[in-house]
Amino acid sequence: MTDLALAVDIGGTKMAAGLVRTDGTVVSHRTIPTPRDTDGEQVWEPLAALLKEVSAGAALAGVGAGSAGPADRAKGEVSPVNIPSWRGFPLRQRISETLPGVPVALAGDGICAAAGEHWRGAGRGHQDLLVMVVSTGVGGGLILGGRLVQGRSGNAGHIGHTVVDMGGDPCACGGYGCVEAYASGPNMVRWALAHGWQPSPAAGTQAGGTGTQTGAASTRAGAGVGVTGEHLAESARSGHPIARQAFSRAGHAIAAGIVSTAALCDLSSVVIGGGVSRSADLLLPPVRQYLARHAKLGFLNDLTVTAAELGGQAGLVGAAALVHEPQRYN
Amino acid sequence: MTDLALAVDIGGTKMAAGLVRTDGTVVSHRTIPTPRDTDGEQVWEPLAALLKEVSAGAALAGVGAGSAGPADRAKGEVSPVNIPSWRGFPLRQRISETLPGVPVALAGDGICAAAGEHWRGAGRGHQDLLVMVVSTGVGGGLILGGRLVQGRSGNAGHIGHTVVDMGGDPCACGGYGCVEAYASGPNMVRWALAHGWQPSPAAGTQAGGTGTQTGAASTRAGAGVGVTGEHLAESARSGHPIARQAFSRAGHAIAAGIVSTAALCDLSSVVIGGGVSRSADLLLPPVRQYLARHAKLGFLNDLTVTAAELGGQAGLVGAAALVHEPQRYN
Repeated sequence: MTDLALAVDIGGTKMAAGLVRTDGTVVSHRTIPTPRDTDGEQVWEPLAALLKEVSAGAALAGVGAGSAGPADRAKGEVSPVNIPSWRGFPLRQRISETLPGVPVALAGDGICAAAGEHWRGAGRGHQDLLVMVVSTGVGGGLILGGRLVQGRSGNAGHIGHTVVDMGGDPCACGGYGCVEAYASGPNMVRWALAHGWQPSPAAGTQAGGTGTQTGAASTRAGAGVGVTGEHLAESARSGHPIARQAFSRAGHAIAAGIVSTAALCDLSSVVIGGGVSRSADLLLPPVRQYLARHAKLGFLNDLTVTAAELGGQAGLVGAAALVHEPQRYN
Repeated sequence: MTDLALAVDIGGTKMAAGLVRTDGTVVSHRTIPTPRDTDGEQVWEPLAALLKEVSAGAALAGVGAGSAGPADRAKGEVSPVNIPSWRGFPLRQRISETLPGVPVALAGDGICAAAGEHWRGAGRGHQDLLVMVVSTGVGGGLILGGRLVQGRSGNAGHIGHTVVDMGGDPCACGGYGCVEAYASGPNMVRWALAHGWQPSPAAGTQAGGTGTQTGAASTRAGAGVGVTGEHLAESARSGHPIARQAFSRAGHAIAAGIVSTAALCDLSSVVIGGGVSRSADLLLPPVRQYLARHAKLGFLNDLTVTAAELGGQAGLVGAAALVHEPQRYN
């Protein structure tokens, strides 16, 4: 039987592979840490071993691989900001060499998350959809007219680097005023620390998020060591005004990015996932409040914003969608 | 012979109709002022007469109509912000009744300008293109993968209402910090007047621009009476610092909107047209300067920004493209 896709999800913190059925069910999967401070081959070797292990004995319909970006889809290469030793790394070719005879489809991780949430998650049935991944970085992907938009170089959907504050904060991408500069977990923590917030004494265990699209590792570096967005969320829930303000500020930037995307692409719905969205109780109210402030054109009236459904598996499910539903997703 | 399209371009200041050949040549055209302070039928009647007059004796392949928006493409209705008496006006049906038996295609004016510049103007040959119209309002349209993007409701391409300054100036749309609030001709003039600029004594003849997408008439109302972007441009060319700053500020907002669009849609090129772009010598340098500041992701490196080629005829040519090249533009 060849109804299984081998799905791969590569981030700066961890790498996952799984077998996914044509109905989107993840049959089995395994996650390993992404090696750091090493060369490109030392990142690739454990991943190659993981792919062989997870696919052992399975007759594959294909491999779908989502990777932190940027990507060069024509060449099949990736240059993840948060995997510095991969620059123009020939991911598609390496996978083909490891699993000969199996077709390989490649896309950015934000794009895969969008495919996953549209295929089997909170975006089901929406024809014009933005999926955001708010985590260590801020990424996303677009579905327009019911089809995944990959873009000429495979880099469509970079909502984290829409400019919402043109005179504003520097961003890890090198630009200024991007959504990610306000709304990524590490940047929320950094802003709160700089404005007098202090994590509770219990905080301090290192908890890594999945890097999405760009800027993940570099934005993490400057945050308080071991202090994460989840500590900030706990503090906000207990009423700390600076912690709450960090979520409000992030929600404003996200709302502005959503309005820009909706005005450009005539969206009907937005799904927000990623680690920070586990604090949807704190994040979605300011997002909706600022959407009401900015989204005034008539065709934006019915825009809906909801939380993602697939959690950490959106990337794997979406990578499998590239294989199982190529007419919509590849 | 039926190789002629009747092209229609409806704005808040003027309405135009023309006959356009399959190669994009405008054979004949006529422009009339848009009636103001009247009811919807009194706007429609002179337009209906214009359509009959311009098309008299011609065997038409179809009618392509571009209108200031927003539009409702499914219903064939338009509600131009700058034609207050048209709210849900059944434009497609009215044209069909006036010219029975001829198919009618409808699109927003920014979308038509994009089709025109892509078909026969500065965007020829570009697969992933944003066309901006910077005039009394700021509008635009997108070509992705070589195809015009109309959007689910016919309102894609509203770059004038991307949010580039989330804590910023109110916009005529009711929101805040939109590109149009900084970069439309009337808003540039208003800002300059508020910051101490005074037009030269020669200024003061009323010169209307073509309204694009939204906000045109309402943003005009507050500007100095009879003072236009062209007076501001003359003053900037003669070195007035506030006038120059108005162009710099507009260029910054336009650049930020372009970067957002390019990050979302993986663009390769941008064409800027509209009345304000007649001052391309003043506008394009700050646009390019701020693009260099904000567009730092690798896949944005080769983004080009050029001036439009079709001038005031982009809308008519693009409306004809809906008829003559429907596989790409309709």
